Order: sequence, then C-alpha cells, then structure tokens
Amino acid sequence: MTYQPPVSQILLAMQSAGKFGAPHYADLSLDDAQAIISEAGRFAAERIAPLNQVGDRLPASINDGKVTTPPGWRVTYRDWCAAGWNGLAGPADHGGQGLPMLMAVGCTELWNSASMAFALCPLLTAGAIEAIAAHASQDLKDFYLPKLVSGEWTGTMNLTEPQAGSDLSDLRCRAERLGDGTYSITGSKIFITYGEHDCASNIVHLVLARLADAPAGTRGISLFLVPKFLPDGTHNDLRCHSLEHKLGIHGSPTCAMTYGDNGGAKGWLIGEENRGLNCMFTMMNNARLLVGVQGVALAERATQMSVAYARERRQGSVPDQRAGASAIIRHPDVKRMLLEMRAKTAAARLLCMATASSIDGSLRAKSADDRRLAHARASLLTPLAKAYSTEIAVEVTSSAIQIHGGMGYIEETGVAQLYRDARILPIYEGTNGIQAIDLVSRKLRLEDGETLLDTLKSSQQGLTIVAGEPLASRIVSEISELAKTLSKAPDSVQSLAAAMPLLRALAAVIAGGYLAESAALVQGGATESEARYFITVELPTAMAAAKSALSGAEILATYNLQ
Amino acid sequence: MTYQPPVSQILLAMQSAGKFGAPHYADLSLDDAQAIISEAGRFAAERIAPLNQVGDRLPASINDGKVTTPPGWRVTYRDWCAAGWNGLAGPADHGGQGLPMLMAVGCTELWNSASMAFALCPLLTAGAIEAIAAHASQDLKDFYLPKLVSGEWTGTMNLTEPQAGSDLSDLRCRAERLGDGTYSITGSKIFITYGEHDCASNIVHLVLARLADAPAGTRGISLFLVPKFLPDGTHNDLRCHSLEHKLGIHGSPTCAMTYGDNGGAKGWLIGEENRGLNCMFTMMNNARLLVGVQGVALAERATQMSVAYARERRQGSVPDQRAGASAIIRHPDVKRMLLEMRAKTAAARLLCMATASSIDGSLRAKSADDRRLAHARASLLTPLAKAYSTEIAVEVTSSAIQIHGGMGYIEETGVAQLYRDARILPIYEGTNGIQAIDLVSRKLRLEDGETLLDTLKSSQQGLTIVAGEPLASRIVSEISELAKTLSKAPDSVQSLAAAMPLLRALAAVIAGGYLAESAALVQGGATESEARYFITVELPTAMAAAKSALSGAEILATYNLQ
Repeated sequence: MTYQPPVSQILLAMQSAGKFGAPHYADLSLDDAQAIISEAGRFAAERIAPLNQVGDRLPASINDGKVTTPPGWRVTYRDWCAAGWNGLAGPADHGGQGLPMLMAVGCTELWNSASMAFALCPLLTAGAIEAIAAHASQDLKDFYLPKLVSGEWTGTMNLTEPQAGSDLSDLRCRAERLGDGTYSITGSKIFITYGEHDCASNIVHLVLARLADAPAGTRGISLFLVPKFLPDGTHNDLRCHSLEHKLGIHGSPTCAMTYGDNGGAKGWLIGEENRGLNCMFTMMNNARLLVGVQGVALAERATQMSVAYARERRQGSVPDQRAGASAIIRHPDVKRMLLEMRAKTAAARLLCMATASSIDGSLRAKSADDRRLAHARASLLTPLAKAYSTEIAVEVTSSAIQIHGGMGYIEETGVAQLYRDARILPIYEGTNGIQAIDLVSRKLRLEDGETLLDTLKSSQQGLTIVAGEPLASRIVSEISELAKTLSKAPDSVQSLAAAMPLLRALAAVIAGGYLAESAALVQGGATESEARYFITVELPTAMAAAKSALSGAEILATYNLQ
Repeated sequence: MTYQPPVSQILLAMQSAGKFGAPHYADLSLDDAQAIISEAGRFAAERIAPLNQVGDRLPASINDGKVTTPPGWRVTYRDWCAAGWNGLAGPADHGGQGLPMLMAVGCTELWNSASMAFALCPLLTAGAIEAIAAHASQDLKDFYLPKLVSGEWTGTMNLTEPQAGSDLSDLRCRAERLGDGTYSITGSKIFITYGEHDCASNIVHLVLARLADAPAGTRGISLFLVPKFLPDGTHNDLRCHSLEHKLGIHGSPTCAMTYGDNGGAKGWLIGEENRGLNCMFTMMNNARLLVGVQGVALAERATQMSVAYARERRQGSVPDQRAGASAIIRHPDVKRMLLEMRAKTAAARLLCMATASSIDGSLRAKSADDRRLAHARASLLTPLAKAYSTEIAVEVTSSAIQIHGGMGYIEETGVAQLYRDARILPIYEGTNGIQAIDLVSRKLRLEDGETLLDTLKSSQQGLTIVAGEPLASRIVSEISELAKTLSKAPDSVQSLAAAMPLLRALAAVIAGGYLAESAALVQGGATESEARYFITVELPTAMAAAKSALSGAEILATYNLQ
C-alpha cells in the first residue's frame, strides 16, 4: 500500500509537545510549517517510498572497493537535494534554511517512514554538518559546509572499531601530526554507515583517532575530518574493503573502512587535540534524537500497513455481526493491537517533538537562563526519546507482523522488512542500555534535579486532564520516588539494573502527559482514545515493571549464571 | 558457538512440572530418560546444529516442481531416522517406541534448538501419524503408519487457502466421491510446510476439502489422505507450484500446492465425511504444544549464545572492578537481560512439560476419571503453552540481538536468524490471539471451572515456596477474579479484547508456581534466582497488564480508528 504522510499528526505533535507557539518560533508561521510538512510528505510518498523494497531486495553492493547503491537511489537522492531538503535545518550562513529542529524532526519522520535505509545517508550528513559547524576552523567550515548542506557531499561518523563499540576508551585508530597542521590517519573502522557509496561526489569522514602522545582512555581521543577526495582532487588514502550482511536496512551500505594502507590518510583536526569525544557528543546527541524519530517513522509505517490490511482481510465473525466473515479490524484482539500501536507511536512522536523543541529552546530562547533550562531539558529527554521510541518501534513492527498473520511472514508483504529494519534502532547511536545508564547517572540530577521536577510537573498537569488529579498526582509521585532512589546511588548494581525499566516508565509518564495535552488540543476523537488507552494500560504496566525492577536487582546481585 | 544440549534442565522440567514420578510413567526409568535425552542432545548438537546457518543462507529451492532441501539436509534426515528418532513417540503397533509425550517434548526442544527449519519436517509427520492413528481406517493405518513412523515417508497438514487462514469456514478445496470409496480432490493450498521436498520417498498430505453436498461452514469440511505417490507407484495429480520467500526458517520449504490440475488428485477419507475439522483438531492440539516447544528451543539457543558472547565481549568497566574493560556479563543491565531470558525460557519449558504430562495422563492414567481430568488440564494448558512460549521466544531472541549489540545485527553472528525464525511461532498453528480466544471462551470453564481452580491451587502451593503464603494467595485470587470476569461473558468485546493479556498473566502465574517447585527440587542455586526473579518481576508486570486490559477494553469499544 502507499504511504500516507501523517501530516496532521505531525503538526499536532509540533503544536502540543513541540510548543510551536513559543516566541522563538515566531519566525515560522503555522501555514509555512504545514506547507513544508505536506510538501516533504509528498516527496517521501511519491519518490522515496517506492525505493524501500527495492533497496531491501537489491542491497548496496561492493565491487573492487566501489559501492553501488540500489537502483533508483542515486537519482532520487539528487532530486531530493535539488529540492532543498538536505539543507532544511542546515546553517543559514552556509546555504541552509536554518529551520528549527522541530521541522527537521517532522521531515525526518517522513523520509524514514518512506525508506529508513535511504534516509540514513542525510541523517549522517546532518550530524557531520553539526560537528563541523560547532567545532571546526573557519577554513574547514567555509570549504566543507556549503557542499554538505546542499547534499553534493555527504558525511559519516567513524567511531566503532572491532574491539571498541559502546566503549571508546580502547580506540586504536592512530593520528600523527604532519607538521603543516594536518594529520596522518591510520587504522580500521567498522559499521560505517554510507562510508562509501555512489550518490555523492565526495564523502567527508569524521574519524576518531588517537595521537601517539595522547593520554590513555577517552581523554586521549581526537576528531579528524578525513575527506574521500582531498581539496586538490586526489583520492585520499582510505577505502571501504567490505560491506556487512545485515538483518535489515539492506539499502544502506554498512562499511568496513581502512585508513592509511599506503602511509596514511590526510586529516584535519576538528576542535582541540584530545577533545574529540566532546565534539563527537555534539553530533551524537542530535543523532540520538533522530534515531528515536526513525523509530517513530517505522512504527507509523507499520501501523498504517496494519490498519489497511485489517480493513481488507476478512476472517471469522464478530459477535454483533449478521453474517459472513468480518474484516479483522472488527475483532477486539486485533483492534486492541491497533490501538496500542497507534498510542505508542503517538507517544514516541510527542517525546521526540518535545526533545526537538527543547533543543530549539537551548539555541533560540531569548534569555540565557531559558536557554540553559531548555538545554537541560533536552539533555534529560534525549535518552528517553531515543530509547523509548526505538523500543516501541520493535514492538509495533512485531505487532504489524502479527496482524498480517501468515502474510506478515512473507517478505513480499513488506512488514517483515520494517521489523528487520527496526531491530538496529535500540542498538546504534548508543544502545538503549547506555541511554538508561546516561539517564540514571547524569540526567536525573541535572540542575540539582529541577529539570526532572519541572518536566514531571508539566506531565502531572497533562495526566490530570485524562486521569484526574488524584491518579495523576499518585503516578507522578511514584515515578519521582523511583527516580530519587535510583539517582541516590547511580553507580550501584541495583540502580544500573533497574535503569532500563525506570527509563521506560519515566518515558511513559512524560509521554502520557503529552498525549493528554494533545488530545485536549483537538478535543477528543481517536486522539483522546489513544491518550486514555496509553494512560490506562501502557503506563501502569511500565510502572509495575519499574517498581518490581528494584527488587529484581537484588536477586541479580547474588545470581550466579551457570 | 556450539549448541550445548540443556540435558539437566530438561530432566528437571520433566521431574517437576512433568510429574515424571507419576505411576503412569513407571515403564520408563529416570536413567533411561536421561540416556535418551543425552543421546538426542548429542545428535542435535553434532549433526543437526551445523546445518542451521546453511539452511538459512541456502534456502530450500524449487525447480520445475521439484524442491531441493539445503546441502546436508537429506543425509542428516536419513541418519536421524535410521537412529530411530522419528519413531520415538510413534505407536508401538506400527513400529514406534510408544514413549510418552514428555519424552517427545524433551527431544523436540533439542531438535528445534539445533535447527527449527530442519525439525519442522518430522514435527508435521508426527501430526499426520497422530491423525491417521486416531481416525483412519485400519487399511490406511496398516499401509501408511509404518513408513511414517520410520520416517521413510513424511506428512503434511493442508489447511490454509488464500482466503481461509485462521477461519476455515470459507474453505473452497473440493472433494468428489469416486464411487469406489476414494475421492477426487481439487483446489489450491498455501503455506504447506514441507509440502514438497527431497528427503523422503513419499509425502502423505492430509488435506481439508469440501464435498459438493456438504453443509456450509466448518461443519462441511472433510479430511483426506492424499499421497504424493499412489500405492501403485504412480504420481498423484498434485504439485508444488512455488515456494514462499519468508522472513525466517528458510531451510523449510513453505509450499503453494495445487491439487487436481489434471482431473483430480486421488484421496482417501480420514474419519467421517464432514467431520474433518474434528480429526484435524486431534493433530492440531499436540502441534500447538510442539510449537510452544519450538519457542522454548529458540529461546534456549538464543540465551546460550548470549551468555557465551557476554562472557567474551569486553566493554566498559563495572563499579567493583580494578582496571580494564569488563566482560559485559558483569554489567548489571546485561546480566538483568540474561536472567530475564533464562527465567522466561525455564518458565516456558515448564509450561510445555506440564502440558505434555497432562496429555500423557489423559492417555495413560489408570482410572477413567483421572484420564478425563488430565485431558481437561491438557486442554487448559495447551493455549497457554503455545502462546506464552512463542511470545517469550520473540522477546528472548530480541534480547539476544541486543546483548550482541552491532554484531547481533550482522547475519553471520547467527542470533538474527533465531530472531527471524522465531517470528512465525506466534502466528502458525492458530495465532496467539486465537489461543487467547480459545482460553477465554472454552478452556476457563472446563469441568465447570474446576480444571482452572485445581491448576491454580497447585500454583498457589508452588508460589508460596518463593513468595510466601499471603502474596501467593493474593496473586492467585487476583488472577481467579480476572478469569471469572472474562469467562462470564466470553464473547463480549471486553473479554475478547482482554483475552491476550489475561492469557499472559495466567501463564505467568502457573509457570511461576512450576518454577518455584523446580527450584525447591534442586534446592536453590541459579534455578532459585530465576524463580524469584520471575515471580518478583515478570509476574507482577504481566498481572498489571492484565488488570488494566479490562479498562483498556472499554476504551476500545468506542475507539473509532481513523
């Protein structure tokens, strides 16, 4: 079936959790926002969506170091860039449109619903733009940003090595000063998304490496810009030597890269020596949010396909029916799954929009205080948006297969691809376990815990609309207590073991508040049912898991895995 | 990594939930049982396990109607049959060893952990044996059973048609009386597992079809035995015209079959005309249990791989560690996932063993009363064993990918295959939604509700060991109340919508009791931790979901899906 861009749901999320009415969005009218989202939706549905199954069946391939993207990829990417979509949120002084993160998130959902494997390429470029804009020298900015913003060139992130995945302290890629201000880079990287491909005339690799005299551990890592083609047009000393054979996102080439086979790849420092991780984190934070958005995107697409199938497919009969088989959408168990899928997808979208809005506030709000508070809120929400949205993406795409029954297990139907594609989301850009540790060990205590308190105060107001004051207040005080217990000893086995269930419950409480607010905004209908279902079913289940997790952690302490 | 047959866990499950000490198992000593499970484990690990990835990468293929199984499949199947494994639970008067279902379940886990795609073939044959043994004429039994029991021939189940999946009332495959007691079968069937292959010299299809003068709906369906090769050696008028391209179990050919292209395939009636569904249900009930066992098998294999990987892989450091990276098994979030995987796998295994034991009781117990009660208990437990075990198989294989991180997303690692293979389990042999409807609309009220009451009484005794009397009694009274509410109006939207969460909670309560009992049997250790974790974390979470599901169902009633 064709993808239907959920324009009104995205706008609703922007207006409610996204606080589109805030003063710092005054430069963008609702009409403009709507026009942009609609237009992006049209491109996504008409041009990108048809590529998705093609990319799955005819994966990116490598031959003699050259990577060929699936049929249709190149021309679509070219047209997409020509229409200006790559520069949407790019810096205005380098050719971008400088639109807020809120708009970027709305559009990112659309591209990824249409084809996540396709949309990964610009997602990585956006990260590179961000890191370069924030930390690189003016010369590097002037030379690289315009072409990255236009999409003529694309960007990558080179972190992972075989022995260094989540833990970068053991990073072994080496950098040597060449004396002229440039560096020579040598080493191997794996899992490099779009590390090599045929859609752009140059690829700008951001590579983490270690200088010989650097301190051990993560404080001795520097970030380098290492282009595929040097400014003089010669090919840099780097190559892709193989592609991974993955469970999903087949259209997206996942490259094993080698730097310096012939003496060393030429690189330029970004930021200061040994401060590479800080620069990387700049781009990683936003990338984490955008991975959350990919989760929303796959959940949305899977839900759409499931609703359409459940309307068509007739099996069995429901009690209130006269004769003949009913469309399975009328079967209560199927309808329950669809309502749950809708509610979770909406919840995740709202969490992502709230995070985007806080990022915008941290950059655009008038007062420094407001910017600081917004930044803290973005920091708190980012691990929630990433982990929650990607967890539900796996669940919702799984339910989509279930609703399709035997047909869902057949690859031609298309939902199985969504299920396979989604499974990377809880892993990359920091596993969800790492998001939970980040939440418990750092984010809960931001601004002396005020950021969490403020956020939960808003959630309580929202929840009150649907659940009433006493229940809303009980929910919020329960989650606050749990958060307090965990953040008291964030490095204890108990807190670390309960971190993930806490994250999920906290995300449910906050998203539940947003859902209630957005239902109030549209005055009922399906949105209200989804909010009520989420608060009535999802939220207490997540709370029960979080509450029991602390006792579970005690068992863990003495568990001797045989 | 190599598969380690969990011999002691299987024996423990047989002895606790499986009630191996019951009088009707007196013909089998524990030593014999142990020898059989160990020997089966050896064959599974040494001969079948190496085929699993081969079958995934080189799927069964079709050429001119002929299906070729993956390399190694044929010879392994031949040797497996020669070793007598196919006849393990087959009827003794037709060459089988007549061992109880308890042993069949133990061995079925081993074959499916080694390779589910491979093990599916004999699983279908076992179902055919059962239906023929229970309902076919003596002539058919004498001719077909010996070769099906030896494995020289294999069997299939032909239910599904494009328009008739879960709902068989719309079945269109036709049967005509030929006047000589045989029938002519015409029509198409889809999703026929091992409908055509090269491992056996004949394939015995059991086909549901409709006589021209049959009543409409499910009361007009008859069951026919339609062999690929007729007794005189000629090829019957049937063929496989294509194989499905599936998410998983690539080694297992899923066939679209055509009967009667040239006038009609010759078939023999099994049981009475228009009573085919009854015959089919005989084999379906045991097949449902065995699908649950497939869930246990994949969960066990995924957990083994995850523990091994988590011991090897070093990332980050844990608080109580001196220096250097820790094996990730020491990270609390990873250890929590492993404990959860172990606990869920053990719980599912115990549920399946208890079901098998009840089936054995229904056939082997001395008094007719005991046989009746055991039959009722088997009927109650079957949907729980099927749905619960297959749900957790999807969850546990997903956690296995998560523990493997980026490596888990690479196909070569092997866990992704388990994740893909597992996803069919909640769908085939009656979707889990259908199991839940079966539970709520029929099984809760068996023997005037006494079957449920008795089962829960045992659960309470078990739970008391770990949770103490007051908590155990509260848990059991809560689930009883829920079950009562739902079974009062089993066809209401509310009950049907809450059926699945109720099934999951009821399965958790019953499995929790078994876990506690088996921990008591081995006096503590890892088994006790797993039981405590399950009862402390999994059970209350499932209960919370079930309790909120009733309120959720009210929202559903007015939900207008847009």
